[in-house]
Amino acid sequence: MSLHIAVVGATGLVGREMLRTLEARKFPHTKISLLASARSAGKTLLFNGEEKTIIEATPEAFEGVDIALFSAGRSASRKLAPEAAARGVVVIDNSNAWRMDPEVPLVVPEVNPGAIDERPRGIIANPNCSTIQMVVALQPIHAISPIRHVVVSTYQAASGKGQAALEELEAQQRAVAIGEKPVASVFPAQIVQNLVMDWMPGKDGYSEEELKMVHETRKIMGDPKIAVSPTAVRVPIATAHAESLHVRCAAPITAEQVREAMRHAPGVVLQDTGEHVPGAHPQPVEAAGQDAVFVGRIRNDLAVDGAVNLWVVADNLRKGAALNAVQIAELLVS
Amino acid sequence: MSLHIAVVGATGLVGREMLRTLEARKFPHTKISLLASARSAGKTLLFNGEEKTIIEATPEAFEGVDIALFSAGRSASRKLAPEAAARGVVVIDNSNAWRMDPEVPLVVPEVNPGAIDERPRGIIANPNCSTIQMVVALQPIHAISPIRHVVVSTYQAASGKGQAALEELEAQQRAVAIGEKPVASVFPAQIVQNLVMDWMPGKDGYSEEELKMVHETRKIMGDPKIAVSPTAVRVPIATAHAESLHVRCAAPITAEQVREAMRHAPGVVLQDTGEHVPGAHPQPVEAAGQDAVFVGRIRNDLAVDGAVNLWVVADNLRKGAALNAVQIAELLVS
Repeated sequence: MSLHIAVVGATGLVGREMLRTLEARKFPHTKISLLASARSAGKTLLFNGEEKTIIEATPEAFEGVDIALFSAGRSASRKLAPEAAARGVVVIDNSNAWRMDPEVPLVVPEVNPGAIDERPRGIIANPNCSTIQMVVALQPIHAISPIRHVVVSTYQAASGKGQAALEELEAQQRAVAIGEKPVASVFPAQIVQNLVMDWMPGKDGYSEEELKMVHETRKIMGDPKIAVSPTAVRVPIATAHAESLHVRCAAPITAEQVREAMRHAPGVVLQDTGEHVPGAHPQPVEAAGQDAVFVGRIRNDLAVDGAVNLWVVADNLRKGAALNAVQIAELLVS
Repeated sequence: MSLHIAVVGATGLVGREMLRTLEARKFPHTKISLLASARSAGKTLLFNGEEKTIIEATPEAFEGVDIALFSAGRSASRKLAPEAAARGVVVIDNSNAWRMDPEVPLVVPEVNPGAIDERPRGIIANPNCSTIQMVVALQPIHAISPIRHVVVSTYQAASGKGQAALEELEAQQRAVAIGEKPVASVFPAQIVQNLVMDWMPGKDGYSEEELKMVHETRKIMGDPKIAVSPTAVRVPIATAHAESLHVRCAAPITAEQVREAMRHAPGVVLQDTGEHVPGAHPQPVEAAGQDAVFVGRIRNDLAVDGAVNLWVVADNLRKGAALNAVQIAELLVS
C-alpha cells in the first residue's frame, strides 16, 4: 500500500517535533512531503537521515497526499485545510481553526478514538496542548463516576507559544544572567522571573486559552455536563505544561480509586505512592522529551467529601501537539 | 517613651527585610538590638546608616527589650520566644512554631488586628507567607458573603525558602545559561526550568505548606467553616508569590462586587478593569519590592453560579513576612 504523508509547517517547533515523532514511531509511509510558507521553501530538513527540500504550501502541493499533519497556524489552516481536503487528503490540524466546528472531530486517541470515523469535512482537529493532557488524566476518573466540575490552574511552558516565544525565554534568561534588562516582544511582559497570563482575550475576562479548556474538554469527552473553571498561566519554563486539578464527579470518589485507575490508564504514567515524598511528584524537567502524561499528587480533597486533587505534567510539544497528531494518523492507517 | 526593639535572625533573608522595613516605615524606637546565632555574633549590619554589631541570641539578650521580631526558624523560636516573653518582651514570631497554639494570636493587621490584645503567652504569630496574601484578598470577599470554599494553587518564589534556596535558584540559572547541569541541594529537585512541590510532608498526601493554608486561614479569619483545597508549588522565580483562587461564598457573589470591594480594601491594589488586557494582570516582577497585595483577573466562574476566580500576587518577603510583622509591631505601639 502506498501512503503519501505531508507535514505542513514543517519548520516550526511543532512541525519539527512531528517529523521526529514520525521517525521515532516508524510511521508507515511511502512518501513524505515537507510543506511550509514561501519563506521557507527551498530550505532543507533531515528526515530519517535524508535531506528533504521544503515545498511551498500551495493548494496544488496537496495533490496525491493521503494524510497531512498541519501545524502552520490558524489562518494557514483556515485557507489550506479545505483545499487539501478537496483533493482527498485527510487533514489532521493542530491549530484552533477547526476544533469547535461540529463537522470536525476533536480527537485524543486515549479518550475518543472512534470520533475519527465521522469527518464530513475531511478534517480532524488536534486539541489544544493544555486540554490534551488534562483529558488524558480525566478520562480514567470519568470512568469511575461522570466528572461534573474541574477547577484547573495551569503552569504552561513558553514553547507552547512557538519558536519565537521559546527563543525569547532563552534570550531573557541570558540577559538576566549578565545583569541586563530582559526584553519582551512575543510575550506581553517579561517571562523570566515572572508569570504571564495567556494574552489572547476570550470572553468575560477569560483568555482564549482558558475557554479552549472549557469547550474542548466537553467536546472530546462527549459530555456537555462537564464544567471547567480555568486559569491559564505561563511560567518561565521551556518545555512541559503542568496542571493543578480539583475534580468532582457525580458520585463521591477516592484518591485510592483514582490511583488504581491511573495504573491502567492508556498514555498515563502514575507517579504517586499515596505518600508525600519530596521530589517524587511529576515534574516538567522529567516529562520533557517523554510521551506520557505524568499524574501524581492524587489527594482526597480536604473540603469537599468525595472530590480529589491531582497534578498532571506532560511535554506540550509531544503529547500536547505532535505525538497526539501522529497517534491520530496511526488510528487512520490501522 | 523609650522603646527597645530587637530583630532575631537579623542576618537572614526575612531578618534583613525586617530591618529595611523598620527603616522605611520609620518605626518609632529608642534602641534596636540585632540578634542572631553564635555564628553571626560580632558581625555588623547597617541600620539607618549606623553600623550595628550582632549579638548572640541568648535568653539574657532579651533583658530590657520591649518588642522582638523573630525570624530565626522554628527551633530557635520554640526555645527563645518563651525566654523572651518571660522577660516581658512581646514576641512577634515569623516561624511556624506557635501559629496554631490556641494561646497565640495569628495576625494579619488588615484582617484581625484586634486579635493582638489577647496574648497570654506574650507571643503573637506572623502567618505563613502564602496564607497572608490569600487572606488579605479573601477578607473583602468574606465581607460580601461568608466564604465557604477556596480552591487555591500557588506559584511560590524560591526566596520563601530562605537565603540558601534563593542562592540555589541563582546558581542553577547560571549553570543552565552556560550549559552545565544544575545542582539541587536545598530543593529536592532542580528548580530552574522546573516546578517543585513543597517537600515537608504534612498529612494525607498534603505538604505541610498546604496544610498551613488550610488551618491558618480559618484561625486568622475566625471562621471554622472556611474550607480550603490547597496545592502549593514552587516556581523558578526569586521573589513574589502568586495564587490562583476559586472562591465560593454562602450566597452567590459577582466579579463586579468583588472588584468594587477590592477598590477599598486595606493593603490591596486592584489591577483589573474587568477586561482581559494582555500583560495587565498582577505579576511577580511588578509586586517584588512592593508592600501591597495585588489582585486581578476577577472573573465570574463559568461552572458555578455565584462563584468567582481571582489571581493574587504579593512580595513574599514583604507582606508575606517582614512587613506583616512590622505592621503587627505598629499595632502594638499605636
